[in-house]
Amino acid sequence: MKLARLGAAGSERPVVVDGDKTYDLAGLTADIDGAFLASGGIDAVRAALAAGELPEAGDVAGLRTGSPVARPGAIICIGMNYAAHAAESGSAPPEVPIMFLKTPNTVGGPDDPVTIPPGSERTDWEVELGVVIGQRALYLGSPGESLSHVAGFVVGNDVSERQFQLVDSGGQWSKGKCAPGFNPLGPWLVTPDEVDHGNLRLRSWVNGEPRQDSSTADLIFGVEHLVWHLSQYLALEPGDVIMTGTPQGVALSGKYPYLKPGDVVEIEIEGLGRQRQEFVKHG
Amino acid sequence: MKLARLGAAGSERPVVVDGDKTYDLAGLTADIDGAFLASGGIDAVRAALAAGELPEAGDVAGLRTGSPVARPGAIICIGMNYAAHAAESGSAPPEVPIMFLKTPNTVGGPDDPVTIPPGSERTDWEVELGVVIGQRALYLGSPGESLSHVAGFVVGNDVSERQFQLVDSGGQWSKGKCAPGFNPLGPWLVTPDEVDHGNLRLRSWVNGEPRQDSSTADLIFGVEHLVWHLSQYLALEPGDVIMTGTPQGVALSGKYPYLKPGDVVEIEIEGLGRQRQEFVKHG
Repeated sequence: MKLARLGAAGSERPVVVDGDKTYDLAGLTADIDGAFLASGGIDAVRAALAAGELPEAGDVAGLRTGSPVARPGAIICIGMNYAAHAAESGSAPPEVPIMFLKTPNTVGGPDDPVTIPPGSERTDWEVELGVVIGQRALYLGSPGESLSHVAGFVVGNDVSERQFQLVDSGGQWSKGKCAPGFNPLGPWLVTPDEVDHGNLRLRSWVNGEPRQDSSTADLIFGVEHLVWHLSQYLALEPGDVIMTGTPQGVALSGKYPYLKPGDVVEIEIEGLGRQRQEFVKHG
Repeated sequence: MKLARLGAAGSERPVVVDGDKTYDLAGLTADIDGAFLASGGIDAVRAALAAGELPEAGDVAGLRTGSPVARPGAIICIGMNYAAHAAESGSAPPEVPIMFLKTPNTVGGPDDPVTIPPGSERTDWEVELGVVIGQRALYLGSPGESLSHVAGFVVGNDVSERQFQLVDSGGQWSKGKCAPGFNPLGPWLVTPDEVDHGNLRLRSWVNGEPRQDSSTADLIFGVEHLVWHLSQYLALEPGDVIMTGTPQGVALSGKYPYLKPGDVVEIEIEGLGRQRQEFVKHG
């Protein structure tokens, strides 16, 4: 199943996308958020869809797509989780997952314009597999317990400002990760049964030219390992999003220019959909 | 004014503490949170208090004290912001504020027990001046604009697990900062007119023995500078909390043992109140 939220920012309505049809979830839930996921909301949608109980959503062609998860409590990012990206960043592959955080107010819709922050000369893209938590996870016993805590997967762009992240930061990366709009999510929250999350092609383009092209099979630490590992350090809450890291092919490598106003970034993950962001000047 | 939230975790009720009297705010607001602060809630409480319109809260003696701010959207921490603490940590004083994040689900009441995470041998205390944002702050023009975005101040304990933070982390500190209960806040949200926030003594004790004893006058980057500086990198939202950094005298210095089950940490900031946490074994 593919869940989505359609409409203006702050007043999206929840839907489920089934083939070429879109069904309204307003009768089941006010929104797709942590409380909905924790209370078995996805099972309820599946049952209602199978029973033919959901009304069609009407004409959705002109509607904006929002993040498919409302108000995550935390955006938990993994750094240097593809060996070739670690190399292009000048780092050795990590021996343990490197965790850092973005503020949840960075989340935007998949096609929302992204503002290049004032003074930025090094704004960069990062296509990533996002993992949406469905059930609270704390001190899991093994990676085998992880998937039962996962609601689904989402495309995420971990937009980064490298000067802020690496130079102005004193070494703690979050300063370059938290500008408004720096975490587009969506278009869909895709349930785990729909994809082989350990083997998905993920790609990015800038102005139509290819940049990243890799597979989640190349993750150093995969989804099951990450959820288990992170749960040893913090409580993962329903609606939280884990951004699993980006593969090689970003501007930080020195191979490509950083983003400037007017540039268009597209990112796509096999089975999870595609995003398109125009990067715009502030003010 | 001193605002507080009293009652069991998850069902606290908002009050204002005025001398030895406590008044109920339930008629004004359901809770003390970002929406309340952004909508001028503090001014409304001040007016109602002055007009004698608030009912007394009745017997509050046995009630638990919660965090005085419900559901912060972000906990934004500043590292190495006292020169002597940077030195005891083996670092030079930073040239710019070092920002890292804690997940908001670390927040607890000021006197709640704190669980030492499984496997932890290096759990540490950090008394800090917390700044509660009252109005959204993004790209402020100067530090002179900062205080109009501040709702008030709060005592915070930035509890830290040093092995997780510094060794198991790959260098990104958040992994040692996010265990459940690792950010006690309170007892009060104190409005700026009540204290000279740039000159407050802050202290900590373990089992009654003194540890930290410093003053916010020793902050390398003060409150006005921090709010302005951070606003260049992210949008500070109403209800967000900035933890401004801790002074010298923590276990990381090597002068004191790390915390073990049964230890009692007390922290206090002049004019902002006192916390007391028993540290307990997991499970």
